[in-house]
Amino acid sequence: MSLSSVKKRVFEILNVAEDGDNVSLAFDIFIFAIIVLNVAVLILGSIRSVLEKYWLLFIIISVITMIIFVIEYGLRIWSCTSDPRYSGPVKGRIRWAMTPFALIDLLVILPYFAFLLFGIDLTALVILRIFRLLKVVKYSDSLSLVVGVINNERKTLFTTYAALMIVLLVAGTLMYQVEGSVQPEKFASIPDGMWWGVITLATIGYGDVVPITAAGKLLGSIIALIGIGLFALPAGILASGFSREIERIHRAENDEEIYLCPHCKQEVTKKDLWKK
Amino acid sequence: MSLSSVKKRVFEILNVAEDGDNVSLAFDIFIFAIIVLNVAVLILGSIRSVLEKYWLLFIIISVITMIIFVIEYGLRIWSCTSDPRYSGPVKGRIRWAMTPFALIDLLVILPYFAFLLFGIDLTALVILRIFRLLKVVKYSDSLSLVVGVINNERKTLFTTYAALMIVLLVAGTLMYQVEGSVQPEKFASIPDGMWWGVITLATIGYGDVVPITAAGKLLGSIIALIGIGLFALPAGILASGFSREIERIHRAENDEEIYLCPHCKQEVTKKDLWKK
Amino acid sequence: MSLSSVKKRVFEILNVAEDGDNVSLAFDIFIFAIIVLNVAVLILGSIRSVLEKYWLLFIIISVITMIIFVIEYGLRIWSCTSDPRYSGPVKGRIRWAMTPFALIDLLVILPYFAFLLFGIDLTALVILRIFRLLKVVKYSDSLSLVVGVINNERKTLFTTYAALMIVLLVAGTLMYQVEGSVQPEKFASIPDGMWWGVITLATIGYGDVVPITAAGKLLGSIIALIGIGLFALPAGILASGFSREIERIHRAENDEEIYLCPHCKQEVTKKDLWKK
Amino acid sequence: MSLSSVKKRVFEILNVAEDGDNVSLAFDIFIFAIIVLNVAVLILGSIRSVLEKYWLLFIIISVITMIIFVIEYGLRIWSCTSDPRYSGPVKGRIRWAMTPFALIDLLVILPYFAFLLFGIDLTALVILRIFRLLKVVKYSDSLSLVVGVINNERKTLFTTYAALMIVLLVAGTLMYQVEGSVQPEKFASIPDGMWWGVITLATIGYGDVVPITAAGKLLGSIIALIGIGLFALPAGILASGFSREIERIHRAENDEEIYLCPHCKQEVTKKDLWKK
Repeated sequence: MSLSSVKKRVFEILNVAEDGDNVSLAFDIFIFAIIVLNVAVLILGSIRSVLEKYWLLFIIISVITMIIFVIEYGLRIWSCTSDPRYSGPVKGRIRWAMTPFALIDLLVILPYFAFLLFGIDLTALVILRIFRLLKVVKYSDSLSLVVGVINNERKTLFTTYAALMIVLLVAGTLMYQVEGSVQPEKFASIPDGMWWGVITLATIGYGDVVPITAAGKLLGSIIALIGIGLFALPAGILASGFSREIERIHRAENDEEIYLCPHCKQEVTKKDLWKK
Repeated sequence: MSLSSVKKRVFEILNVAEDGDNVSLAFDIFIFAIIVLNVAVLILGSIRSVLEKYWLLFIIISVITMIIFVIEYGLRIWSCTSDPRYSGPVKGRIRWAMTPFALIDLLVILPYFAFLLFGIDLTALVILRIFRLLKVVKYSDSLSLVVGVINNERKTLFTTYAALMIVLLVAGTLMYQVEGSVQPEKFASIPDGMWWGVITLATIGYGDVVPITAAGKLLGSIIALIGIGLFALPAGILASGFSREIERIHRAENDEEIYLCPHCKQEVTKKDLWKK
Repeated sequence: MSLSSVKKRVFEILNVAEDGDNVSLAFDIFIFAIIVLNVAVLILGSIRSVLEKYWLLFIIISVITMIIFVIEYGLRIWSCTSDPRYSGPVKGRIRWAMTPFALIDLLVILPYFAFLLFGIDLTALVILRIFRLLKVVKYSDSLSLVVGVINNERKTLFTTYAALMIVLLVAGTLMYQVEGSVQPEKFASIPDGMWWGVITLATIGYGDVVPITAAGKLLGSIIALIGIGLFALPAGILASGFSREIERIHRAENDEEIYLCPHCKQEVTKKDLWKK
Repeated sequence: MSLSSVKKRVFEILNVAEDGDNVSLAFDIFIFAIIVLNVAVLILGSIRSVLEKYWLLFIIISVITMIIFVIEYGLRIWSCTSDPRYSGPVKGRIRWAMTPFALIDLLVILPYFAFLLFGIDLTALVILRIFRLLKVVKYSDSLSLVVGVINNERKTLFTTYAALMIVLLVAGTLMYQVEGSVQPEKFASIPDGMWWGVITLATIGYGDVVPITAAGKLLGSIIALIGIGLFALPAGILASGFSREIERIHRAENDEEIYLCPHCKQEVTKKDLWKK
């Protein structure tokens, strides 16, 4: 077995498994498990009482993870040249290293060295590896559906968010003018008014900043009644996008169904009919 | 009347009534009433002042209920063999006892014995019988519609919930990093940050954990504006699922309507027309 | 002009105006204005400082309103017999007095007499007259659209609300079990737990009752993530109902458009085509 | 180059750029940048600590902006007569000055003079210029989509908001009656009850006004469960309006696609086919 075929096989194993490639699948599951384990360490390690008890275990897991991630990164950058897109020993590898997922991998490794060299703790960046999970599951039809719908609606979503910003700015300025003199510590500036606006119009309503004057309550009510519809629009747009996309998929499937032509008695699909 | 026909009749009565079987319907209503009565006892018995006044009544209701439920369970396990699915005096009965509703019935009876034998109060498990009500009303078209839609959309819902988890984890970690040093008692750990994330992104906003720094408020606003659309997706997906399903039912009903063929004057349905 | 034609004219004037009947329209606007005025008195009169200043004005408005409403009720009960549905001097008038709007009118008048006779203040019932406004505007297509959609979806809405009740009961019981021992004054009973459930699952989140244990927060998060989709369903079902209903109206309008038959060159509508 | 052609060119430059008119586009971007800069000054200037540090810079920006805006307004009112709609040296200019955007421009300039003459600070009105940005981006299809949908649904939205008002009034009156005697400072009047209603039914839930009696909590729960569906309707109506509008656009685009007629082999569109 030549080196280039070894390299090709390593590349295959490191990347998301094709159907039937059990070694590659096992590697995916292994990396998946390490990421989940590290996320668990990240979460549990943030709880003081747990950290005090298990700090040694957490460090061991982190060190082993780092070694695995460094080896994985090394193998990836070595083997990536077997992919035609990244061919070329230097330029291809740089091109690969600039891909989003490669940058994430690097960003996850670097903190460990930063910690060893400078004592800066950035291990929370392991959380970035979670996005790699997206790559593993991207074959799932429903994820691609979600991404597709967001992509379809991106222009309308952008417009809606721009309108939200203007509404927020106007609402925040108005509330600052109305309530600022009565509650100078809560509505101290327009950004404070906009904070009130976000928390109110998104219907979160913490209650940390609340109008207390009659004018403020009236203004707040009007802003809430008008603005909430606008803030709920992104979700509504996405939901209606889903509806249309799923409808389209159903229709496409429907077009695949086989009918008999009334004239020649041969099998035809609706798709054929339309295209003809 | 032979024993096997008595057993068959008992089985019919114990199970959800067929149309026109008034004895079985009366039994369903009787059990329905007992469940509602016990739920009322459970709720009212949790209020100390009510419990102190009516404890004797509540105990009497509980004891009578227990006797009825034990007899009902006994009759069910005795008569279930008259259903072909559970034929066989031992194996059939075990198969029946393993069905979800039989397990619920057992889980509701056991606490009473646990209480008599060990003094452990688990009578709150009577609440599980409420799910049996689902069985009674499952003929209602609209419930099967709700279940059907959830079932249709389960893959998309699962993906959305997985995305929610990742967003929650990232949001919780970021807020813990930003606010943890200023409010060490509120954002004490990543799980605390994730609690903030759930309460904020679900737009509940209790106000028990709120960012107070400018950076935390800005980050919280951005997370809220982006994340809320995602959190509202499950409801939107279900709603659009309803829309499509009801549309489909209407179209199916429409296809059943009878028309007259303009050529032969015979009755045809649109369904026939399409298929031809 | 005979008495019966006077009675008929009075009946027409008292009821919602037909197109072009300006006297009747003026009367509608007059009653509309009185109701709005009384609602304003009701609202403003509830503010102590305003009441102290304008109590005489408010009493005068109330007394005049009472006189008008009593005369109106008298004229209505006198003239109603000119409507074939309420013919018969005694039985017809009783039948009319039992209609929902007549009962509302009576409920609005009675408190004044109750006040004069027994000193009981029930004048807030004037708010019931607001529902009469619904009668005035019922010609508006969009209101009948709203009512129609709610009516279409009533079965699904009922099922959803029944499911909500079960979810609330289970959620309230669980939270009472988990948080009751730590916060005995906040989660003192199952109804308290259900109050938490309503306020959380409807995403209101006052913050008056909040889980504080780790188990309670985890349970609350899970309940929130699952339950919110369910609580948002009624709105989603209504919205999708609107979509379908408006679609149906558009299609119906489309069916009215006139086409030329390719065979006989005569005008036909799609509606005719379908029906044939 | 004659004066009238100079005037025409000035008018073109001042207004939103046509495709390929780079000078006009540059002017649009310049005004856009000034508005964004002034909004930034408005926001930052409301923060005391920032204002104390940069007040001179902010004043300089304001003065320069004022000069630019005055010159711009002057040029606009001078050149507007080159548009046939505003021809006529006096009447045309008055007609122009009465357009919404011209009024906004005037409202933004006036405060500066008000400040110079009377010391009244109304510079916050610069925020109104933000609406002019709408004019710049109005070519974007998605904004016109948003506006179109709101316009299509305005009747239904109006009815829904009217229904909301009645629900709010009834809910506020009921809660005032139930909770007013126990919490006289929180539910002091019907407007206070309606404030509770807005904050609850919009699911904001600040927690500043919360029912504490059992009756109030039960009533509040019922109001919440019923009312929330109604409050979510505007967003749902808009979202379903989007769905239909986008569907319509897709269908219209689809009708423009060119097919070959199976009989004569000539190009046809579906639109032609339908119309025949």
